[in-house]
Amino acid sequence: QSFKLLKAKTITVGLIPGDGIGKEVIPAGVSVLNHVTKLPQFSDIKFNYIPLEAGWEAFTKYGEALPDSTVKSLQEDCDCALFGAVQSPTTKVEGYSSPIVKLRKEMGLYANIRPVKEVVPNGKFGKVDMCIVRENTEDLYIKKETTYTDSNGKKVADAIKRISETASENIMKIAVEIAAQKATLTGEKQKLTVVHKSNVLSQSDGLFRETCASVYKASPKEQQDKVIYNEQIVDSMVYKMIRDPSEFDFVVAPNLYGDILSDGAAALVGSLGLVPSCNVGKSIFIGEPCHGSAPDIAGQGIANPIATIRSTALMLEFMGYSEMAKVIDDAVDANIVEGAIKTPDLGGKNTLEDVLQDILKRIN
Amino acid sequence: QSFKLLKAKTITVGLIPGDGIGKEVIPAGVSVLNHVTKLPQFSDIKFNYIPLEAGWEAFTKYGEALPDSTVKSLQEDCDCALFGAVQSPTTKVEGYSSPIVKLRKEMGLYANIRPVKEVVPNGKFGKVDMCIVRENTEDLYIKKETTYTDSNGKKVADAIKRISETASENIMKIAVEIAAQKATLTGEKQKLTVVHKSNVLSQSDGLFRETCASVYKASPKEQQDKVIYNEQIVDSMVYKMIRDPSEFDFVVAPNLYGDILSDGAAALVGSLGLVPSCNVGKSIFIGEPCHGSAPDIAGQGIANPIATIRSTALMLEFMGYSEMAKVIDDAVDANIVEGAIKTPDLGGKNTLEDVLQDILKRIN
Ligand SMILES: CC(C)[C@H](C(=O)O)[C@@H](O)C(=O)O
Ligand SMILES: CC(C)[C@H](C(=O)O)[C@@H](O)C(=O)O
Repeated sequence: QSFKLLKAKTITVGLIPGDGIGKEVIPAGVSVLNHVTKLPQFSDIKFNYIPLEAGWEAFTKYGEALPDSTVKSLQEDCDCALFGAVQSPTTKVEGYSSPIVKLRKEMGLYANIRPVKEVVPNGKFGKVDMCIVRENTEDLYIKKETTYTDSNGKKVADAIKRISETASENIMKIAVEIAAQKATLTGEKQKLTVVHKSNVLSQSDGLFRETCASVYKASPKEQQDKVIYNEQIVDSMVYKMIRDPSEFDFVVAPNLYGDILSDGAAALVGSLGLVPSCNVGKSIFIGEPCHGSAPDIAGQGIANPIATIRSTALMLEFMGYSEMAKVIDDAVDANIVEGAIKTPDLGGKNTLEDVLQDILKRIN
Repeated sequence: QSFKLLKAKTITVGLIPGDGIGKEVIPAGVSVLNHVTKLPQFSDIKFNYIPLEAGWEAFTKYGEALPDSTVKSLQEDCDCALFGAVQSPTTKVEGYSSPIVKLRKEMGLYANIRPVKEVVPNGKFGKVDMCIVRENTEDLYIKKETTYTDSNGKKVADAIKRISETASENIMKIAVEIAAQKATLTGEKQKLTVVHKSNVLSQSDGLFRETCASVYKASPKEQQDKVIYNEQIVDSMVYKMIRDPSEFDFVVAPNLYGDILSDGAAALVGSLGLVPSCNVGKSIFIGEPCHGSAPDIAGQGIANPIATIRSTALMLEFMGYSEMAKVIDDAVDANIVEGAIKTPDLGGKNTLEDVLQDILKRIN
């Protein structure tokens, strides 16, 4: 399996801003893509965009949070996409279902890669440079739930947590692969930590853990030499990650633990507004900031565009455009190192547009 | 419902040290109990002890990690108990099942109360003084799992996450009650945050969330006036707790989120070796340190006894012996404030015995 399939000169990007600040940050990603192709070394590459709908606004318009047309276009027309964020209703709304969860499943986006890296030392914790490799299609996210009444007339709701050998194999394979790649790049062995709760869930999390161990053992010798295998129980993992994040390089986890751990890791680097992700499928890559739609600050132009800009770079990297990704990431790093122009989540007073312009200026 | 039922003059305490450092810390709890009854104001109280077995060692001896005799004695003879820690086998062992999970369920220990409080400012995060009120009997801890093969001959394992209205009511009631009590004691309103993932699990976590909201609304007016109701999605909760723990006073959560959150909170105060818990049942209270059996340091006499000593105090508090609990907690606070005598987990060089003696000296 390779995630460096596409080297096309014209790349079609689906744009799914969604709701709230999603509508503000996705255009920042587009500005970066347009800007980077102005550099002479990338002048032979062109990005096309297809605007697509999903989210609460789409639900109110069409009665569907993820219209079929969006899925169809992603499948048929797009090489990759950028997904912003969607607003969830705070109480249960008939027929509404989170479009990102559905998208991940329907598009076979089996891995969600979430690198969390500090650019300047955080001054509180150990060094943070970890990558959470989150299974993206199953676990409690299959949303198989039933509600019934017990003998006292009280409600009981059961949800199924599903762990399959196949999905566990897929996620561990990509985890080993990217960990080995990073080891090659940096010349340093990478630790890969498998997160589970098999002391309680001996079958489901037990299967995850055993499968990860088998995949590691079956990996090519040159990968095994570069990747150190570790395991952590999820509660202990959260504890250790806060106490000393420098202990962790790559972390592979079932869906829900991956969700929780990536927010925890984001807290260590100072803001969710910095943390990117890439949803990886067999033939599509969807960049997505880890933050939500942030209704409290939506419309004010002060959302941090960095998570989206880094997601854009990450998407390009998975598509094989590593140099382009590096140019973008370096520009973001330079903005953060200087620390002069930043949005309020980082304690700054600047707008999204200020930060975007500063980063664009540095893309060269 | 009241958790101040027992004021007996002779209190029978079951002692379940378990494995590893459990065997070292439980005797420290006993020393504290014996010492405190030497104070004139508590001289009419007497503690009796019944040694009980559970854990890996018990499993190797009897083929059962939680022998029936232990459960029977707790039910019939004990007013309360202290549970140390048990070692889980690292790979699946036929017939072995975590005794603490079983105990919580069989004894109807419906709530696990985990106060996490800093004594000296941590210098890294906001102030930490929160109490995690963890549902203790259901969720994925019912351990209903099945494994089958899919059409490709690959394994799939399903586990059931169960949320019931009854258990959710019980946990929210005690959460509101102890939050209101603390408000009365301190003269300050307490925030109570309900943790869930109902944006994905609309039925199960949705039921937890709705039930908590209903219980709050149905609480006596004077409790509602003292307790501020809040909600957080679990991933966001982990993020916010690390960013600023001072935002949280009481946190009520389904079993697994409570497990994860209490380890996260423990990391904020510097060591799991400081964090106590009390398992609360209708007529029994079991103190239990939040740490595990720590095989790496077992037998060296350097485990931190504070989590157990505080668990002992917490158990007494739930039994209605608040003054006795306070005397013990104050002694622990004094040890921590002075900071001279501490175990290696806190960066010290002292033994368990040194710390215990220092605390005993301060009980007066
Ligand atoms: C919005 C929500 C359904 C989603 C998730 O739980 O996966 C989000 O928290 C994320 O991390 O992408
Ligand atoms: C040992 C384990 C089964 C237990 C749990 O998950 O409840 C522990 O982590 C705890 O927090 O008490």
